[in-house]
Amino acid sequence: MKEINVQPPSGTRDFLSKDVKKREWALNMIKQVFEVFGFAPIDTPAFERIETLTGKYGEEGEKLMFKILKRGNQAASGETDLALRYDFTVPLVRFFAKYQNQLPRPFRRYQIGPVWRADRPGKGRFREFYQCDIDVIGSSSLVADAEVILALTRSLSCLGLPGYIVRLNSRRVLTGLLEAYGIPETSRQDTLTALDKLDKIGVSGVAEELKSRGLPKLVISQISDDLSQKDMGRIRDRAVISRIGQEGLQEVDEIISLVSLLMADGRIEFSPFMARGLDYYTGPIFEIYLKGATGAIASGGRYDDLVGKFVGGQVPACGGSLGIDRILSTLEVKNPNREDGLKPQVFVTVWDRSMRPEALQIAEELRNERIITEVFLEEGKISNQIRLASNRGAKYCLFYGPDEQTKKEVTIKNLSTGEQRSVSREKIAETLQKLVQER
Amino acid sequence: MKEINVQPPSGTRDFLSKDVKKREWALNMIKQVFEVFGFAPIDTPAFERIETLTGKYGEEGEKLMFKILKRGNQAASGETDLALRYDFTVPLVRFFAKYQNQLPRPFRRYQIGPVWRADRPGKGRFREFYQCDIDVIGSSSLVADAEVILALTRSLSCLGLPGYIVRLNSRRVLTGLLEAYGIPETSRQDTLTALDKLDKIGVSGVAEELKSRGLPKLVISQISDDLSQKDMGRIRDRAVISRIGQEGLQEVDEIISLVSLLMADGRIEFSPFMARGLDYYTGPIFEIYLKGATGAIASGGRYDDLVGKFVGGQVPACGGSLGIDRILSTLEVKNPNREDGLKPQVFVTVWDRSMRPEALQIAEELRNERIITEVFLEEGKISNQIRLASNRGAKYCLFYGPDEQTKKEVTIKNLSTGEQRSVSREKIAETLQKLVQER
Repeated sequence: MKEINVQPPSGTRDFLSKDVKKREWALNMIKQVFEVFGFAPIDTPAFERIETLTGKYGEEGEKLMFKILKRGNQAASGETDLALRYDFTVPLVRFFAKYQNQLPRPFRRYQIGPVWRADRPGKGRFREFYQCDIDVIGSSSLVADAEVILALTRSLSCLGLPGYIVRLNSRRVLTGLLEAYGIPETSRQDTLTALDKLDKIGVSGVAEELKSRGLPKLVISQISDDLSQKDMGRIRDRAVISRIGQEGLQEVDEIISLVSLLMADGRIEFSPFMARGLDYYTGPIFEIYLKGATGAIASGGRYDDLVGKFVGGQVPACGGSLGIDRILSTLEVKNPNREDGLKPQVFVTVWDRSMRPEALQIAEELRNERIITEVFLEEGKISNQIRLASNRGAKYCLFYGPDEQTKKEVTIKNLSTGEQRSVSREKIAETLQKLVQER
Repeated sequence: MKEINVQPPSGTRDFLSKDVKKREWALNMIKQVFEVFGFAPIDTPAFERIETLTGKYGEEGEKLMFKILKRGNQAASGETDLALRYDFTVPLVRFFAKYQNQLPRPFRRYQIGPVWRADRPGKGRFREFYQCDIDVIGSSSLVADAEVILALTRSLSCLGLPGYIVRLNSRRVLTGLLEAYGIPETSRQDTLTALDKLDKIGVSGVAEELKSRGLPKLVISQISDDLSQKDMGRIRDRAVISRIGQEGLQEVDEIISLVSLLMADGRIEFSPFMARGLDYYTGPIFEIYLKGATGAIASGGRYDDLVGKFVGGQVPACGGSLGIDRILSTLEVKNPNREDGLKPQVFVTVWDRSMRPEALQIAEELRNERIITEVFLEEGKISNQIRLASNRGAKYCLFYGPDEQTKKEVTIKNLSTGEQRSVSREKIAETLQKLVQER
């Protein structure tokens, strides 16, 4: 036989039942939090027209999109017309543009599902991964930014991950700093790109990259000094020189003040060089880290210009996204009952072929009472059937043979104790429902 | 501004909150049924390697796959290496091949999610649609086929759609009939393709198509007669001539007998010309129809050869799939509380900027008690805030100004009655929790 590759495609994963159940538990928890914050769910297709996505994610992002070939006669052209969604923000904005007249303002929505990016796969980095997004469209108030951060951090607490730190900045602070360093407009995007790699390549790496991009030595040494600086006062002094830097600092300070009663000291900190990769951010931006983990678990920011690109005019908006894939393996499911779907509670044996319709009928009665029930499928000795029931992890095993049929009874065997008892055929569902709840 | 197309891509849909909630309700119901039948969830990626999917769905199916362009330097080649999943059966088989040593036998799994087919979009026919699949791998017993049918019909009942009819056949019956008509091997696939269109083009349409495919006139007239035949006796007589036809009839009869205690007369019927499109079926096949609706709501069958293509040897398997998209609009959500996520239960007004941190703190306390809470985001007159709260559908509105702050109180306004009362700041969450449950 030809060797067949049975791995999932590079960067994607299969989920066994226990992993599906764990993910479901986590997503349900997050949904509940988003809903008590007044966010309502929407859904959009897995793919969008390519022109909807183009020009939103920066050059790097465009390269990482999964593009879909045209179909039918046009397939041979090699042209593409669709691409898998790269995030939920751009689809949200298209959605908002289409339905704006029937949506409440401000529009608070959440969307949870997979997105796809052709990143190089690595530890905790996948090409198909779940994002849990919340956004507020139609409000310029920083209370919206604060609520987004609060909903995300509360989600983490509810998942049993209270050890988070929020790093907060504003795109305006960055612009102010770049102005203060005297970096010309034309080099600013390059500088931001280099700063965005700080976590990965360190201060010296950033300096190296800025040098290769031709920045003056003096500027590089100023930036390097500031990057190593623990004293925010000096950086604030630099940012505050420009009008836009001032505005940025005010944004940061106001958000910190808004959440001050809810986040203990050290839970949220000003992080003046945090840049966030995506092109569309305009104001406050944030990243949320879990202690002891590398990489942000959640992030987001304000994007006041993106919605306008679709609907015209200016429609302020902000949002954030929580990625669960990196933490799934570390989660402890608090309610182990969620995993019950994996084992049958009751296993119905089959005496012989002629008894099979009645075995199915008994199973139906149990299932009507939400008892997880399997029926023996093959033909075989009762002893083999009992062995299979034990292997499957069933708690109870039922027998219904000619004897039982005559007496209008069913025999129940407790597979952990070996104990057997007979109950009236009519009472079988009722009896097992009680037994199953007892354990 | 350039005109931007804000429609979702052709054949796909956006879901507003109420539609997401409805779909969630339906999918949860189906999950519960599948789990009490002892099926456990798995998940696989949205796309598979193209070679995994090729040769499984027939010529027509291959054309309808959404294929993904290679990335990076290879994009320019116009070549594709991945395709969106076309169903859940082939991914399941790959999954089974990979994990077979850690999976129970028989392996009963379910998978629910979107699949993608580039069909011509039409009423109730989408390019992205949800399938709810159950399969049993590793059992040749027809009890497995019966259980698949029972789990699907029970799902329909639980969704409030008890008016179903199961149409049952076996690929072996079809082969037996084709032998009896004397149709040569080489024309059999053509004949099946024509028969598969019976529902769409009627008896005369099928006859026309068979003629164009060069079948002898006598054979066409025999088939046409049989297609119009209500008396199954004559068709059984024809099928039973061949060994394979006999086997097929036995399969059909046994499944009908297995479910006889659970399905009233007329709920399941032998449908000797039902062919099912997909290539991989080998034995019993079925379609489930809802009274008054066109097109099958669920379908499936036995595919004893497909798993072997991946793992070698023969591994019997059967399964079925329920598509919810066609029925979603007709569903009545039985528990309207499921839609609560859409409206805030409590709306917290904000007296002025200085009071915003405390407004957020009050909201946090309510949200901790799972009360769906919105906070006013902008700055504005209290009267405007109350108007917004009413528009959003909130039941209660809270005030916390300097007066309340001094008295350590919060004022609660019932927005339907206009009634106001003050409660101690400390008791606000407790009080509202009671009020919210009362309604």
